[in-house]
Amino acid sequence: MNELPETAGNRLDPWFGSYAARAHGMRASEIRALFAVANRPEVVSLAGGMPYLEGLPLDVIADTMQRLIATKGTTALQYGSGQGEESLREHITQVVALEGVSAHPDDVVVTTGSQSALDLVTRIFVDPGDVVVTEAPSYVGALGVFRSYQADVVQVPLDADGLVPEELDAALARLATEGRRVKFLYTVPNFQNPAGVTLSAARRPQILEICRRHGVLVVEDNPYGLLGFDDEPLPALRSYDTDGVLYLGSFSKTFAPGYRVGFVIAPHAVRDKLVLASESAVLSPSNASQLAVATYLETCDWKAQIKDYREMYRDRRDALVGALGEYLPTASWNVPRGGFFVWVRLPEGLDARAMLPRAVTARVAYVPGTAFYYDGSGSDHMRLSFCFPTPERIREGVRRLAGVVNAESELVQIFGTSAQPDPDAEDVEGPAPDLA
Amino acid sequence: MNELPETAGNRLDPWFGSYAARAHGMRASEIRALFAVANRPEVVSLAGGMPYLEGLPLDVIADTMQRLIATKGTTALQYGSGQGEESLREHITQVVALEGVSAHPDDVVVTTGSQSALDLVTRIFVDPGDVVVTEAPSYVGALGVFRSYQADVVQVPLDADGLVPEELDAALARLATEGRRVKFLYTVPNFQNPAGVTLSAARRPQILEICRRHGVLVVEDNPYGLLGFDDEPLPALRSYDTDGVLYLGSFSKTFAPGYRVGFVIAPHAVRDKLVLASESAVLSPSNASQLAVATYLETCDWKAQIKDYREMYRDRRDALVGALGEYLPTASWNVPRGGFFVWVRLPEGLDARAMLPRAVTARVAYVPGTAFYYDGSGSDHMRLSFCFPTPERIREGVRRLAGVVNAESELVQIFGTSAQPDPDAEDVEGPAPDLA
Repeated sequence: MNELPETAGNRLDPWFGSYAARAHGMRASEIRALFAVANRPEVVSLAGGMPYLEGLPLDVIADTMQRLIATKGTTALQYGSGQGEESLREHITQVVALEGVSAHPDDVVVTTGSQSALDLVTRIFVDPGDVVVTEAPSYVGALGVFRSYQADVVQVPLDADGLVPEELDAALARLATEGRRVKFLYTVPNFQNPAGVTLSAARRPQILEICRRHGVLVVEDNPYGLLGFDDEPLPALRSYDTDGVLYLGSFSKTFAPGYRVGFVIAPHAVRDKLVLASESAVLSPSNASQLAVATYLETCDWKAQIKDYREMYRDRRDALVGALGEYLPTASWNVPRGGFFVWVRLPEGLDARAMLPRAVTARVAYVPGTAFYYDGSGSDHMRLSFCFPTPERIREGVRRLAGVVNAESELVQIFGTSAQPDPDAEDVEGPAPDLA
Repeated sequence: MNELPETAGNRLDPWFGSYAARAHGMRASEIRALFAVANRPEVVSLAGGMPYLEGLPLDVIADTMQRLIATKGTTALQYGSGQGEESLREHITQVVALEGVSAHPDDVVVTTGSQSALDLVTRIFVDPGDVVVTEAPSYVGALGVFRSYQADVVQVPLDADGLVPEELDAALARLATEGRRVKFLYTVPNFQNPAGVTLSAARRPQILEICRRHGVLVVEDNPYGLLGFDDEPLPALRSYDTDGVLYLGSFSKTFAPGYRVGFVIAPHAVRDKLVLASESAVLSPSNASQLAVATYLETCDWKAQIKDYREMYRDRRDALVGALGEYLPTASWNVPRGGFFVWVRLPEGLDARAMLPRAVTARVAYVPGTAFYYDGSGSDHMRLSFCFPTPERIREGVRRLAGVVNAESELVQIFGTSAQPDPDAEDVEGPAPDLA
């Protein structure tokens, strides 16, 4: 029998003793509290992953929404199918064809953003204690999902050409020797979040061969693939292997995140499980959102919009990288060829997490590298986003950041350390929306 | 090490050996296949829980959507907060005040329909093997969620006044003696799905006292509460007890399900966990959907719309009950005072599940009672929905159903049984969207 709440709980939470094991790790971190401050307009946020939407043709979209409700309202406002609207699934096959993926609408499951796709994939595959392999570093929101399903995450190094095949092979061999159950490799092959790197064309078949050999499914998360600044997109991993790869896509970065429309392309048996899991989670994804996205794809020149986005984000990347060269020459960074993020290594001895409160005080925010590692390492790195602020604000943000970094560096030179990290400090536990 | 998919799987699914334990129960049932047929226009579906949306002022809603995107597009199309839009949470406190619930916007968590609320509540509370107590019968979509989290569901009888307090007390006492961990009582107090009954005013404090005494949280799911045909709404359970009740609400039945906007009102500590779980599941609920619902509540006379719905659904209830009296006097049923559903007991010896294929052949569909019981009982009942078809179609549907029932009854009288249930038959495993 459960005890009375008065005795079982604590004074703050009468249900303290009732939570599931998976809920114990769910605590708001001090970084979250800082981000509440960082959202103030006077702070330049290089932390968030929010796309910049001012360039969208809002009047045109508004008119298409009007027509959608006026002419198809009883469908748009009704429950839909668990798998998603067929017209949207058709369009999705055309979008992914740009990266060489040949899919049938039957292969597609529409989800409430690709975050929900990640959640559902993990739900159907991961038992507590199972291993998920990811890049080191990896997307904070994915790590949060894996943690919430009590997975054990093993991270494998990447370099300028993405995930390192030899390191992956060695890690999978080691895990096999240890008798661990590896459920899948989670990878962001294009303009990786947070590292900004892209898996080279040469490595793509190698990674697939290694996973196939070890019997490991590949979960390919590709929100940024069409946002390359210079080159045509590389073929998706899914384009090489339809049985061994689940492909996760999203309209959040190429159109708008507010509709929460993402998708999975999966082998049929896995697709069936995903549909059942999705029905359990939400009954059906929003028809209104799905038809809005389908109507946008039908009636607007979405390829031209993506081209506009690419140019805008390239300008912002250039602004960020230029400002880093000017203001922060003591740090080092990569120059991403697409996406939203630059991964910065701080000068020797600095701790990005410990420094964050001082940065926010100086009115600039970033995400410390520790958020992207399961084991809490990464304090020598920070992720800087160039997606949301204007180029002028990006330059100003880096200028402020350089002031903080240089002051910290002086302390390190004088005292050998800038500050002790707070022993109670935690990483970002959940994928706070502005970290997407 | 995982084995190679070729050897670990079967020929149809190379990942057969990789699924999580929770995924093993996820199989499409033969009832699902039937419902694909039942969705054909020539079939009168008394199976679905879809609201009838023709009465909505679509032109007005279309215009408000146009203005929403044109004037607040960069907010509506952007990521939002994990807890949900503050303006919508404000409105929600006014909606629930109609049932005596006093809530602050801080107490509200917006979810992707109330199905997602159910999923997140179960996620934070239920470990495999934990017990969830529900009414017998109970909502099929809730049973599916509990099953997917590997809960053990114990169902307690209800009567014409709802859940029976003495039965609940006895069940909780028995479970305590057995050392079982009961995580919560899941109850639909108003116009219950599927039984159509309402928990009486007298029983409400009794149920709460029993749960408090046993240290059991109450999850009050109330999608239909404002859809009473005759009386003012009874006070919600949450109105008596803010610490011991999680209140789940939805706009799917009082406005439109296509936006997928539901919510939870929770004690603060539980709310914090729900927000973190929601961020892990979807990052943030759709801003476009939330602002659409908030704008509707602001600019349209939503109370008048609910009044229209009540009258329309009362007419349909009357049509269904009238047709049952005329065509199916050998069955018995309740007369619900609100909501969407009538719970019908078949004449002695008939099996609703075994009969369903013949009903669909006769172009009428319903949900067999077995879907609403965890242990597969309930074959002597069926749920008939009066929400979606017109009164004329409802009458025609019952006429067709009576033809099938009477033919079955003749077989029973002659042979003592109408048919053997298929031993391989399964219940509806997931909450198929049209069962909502």
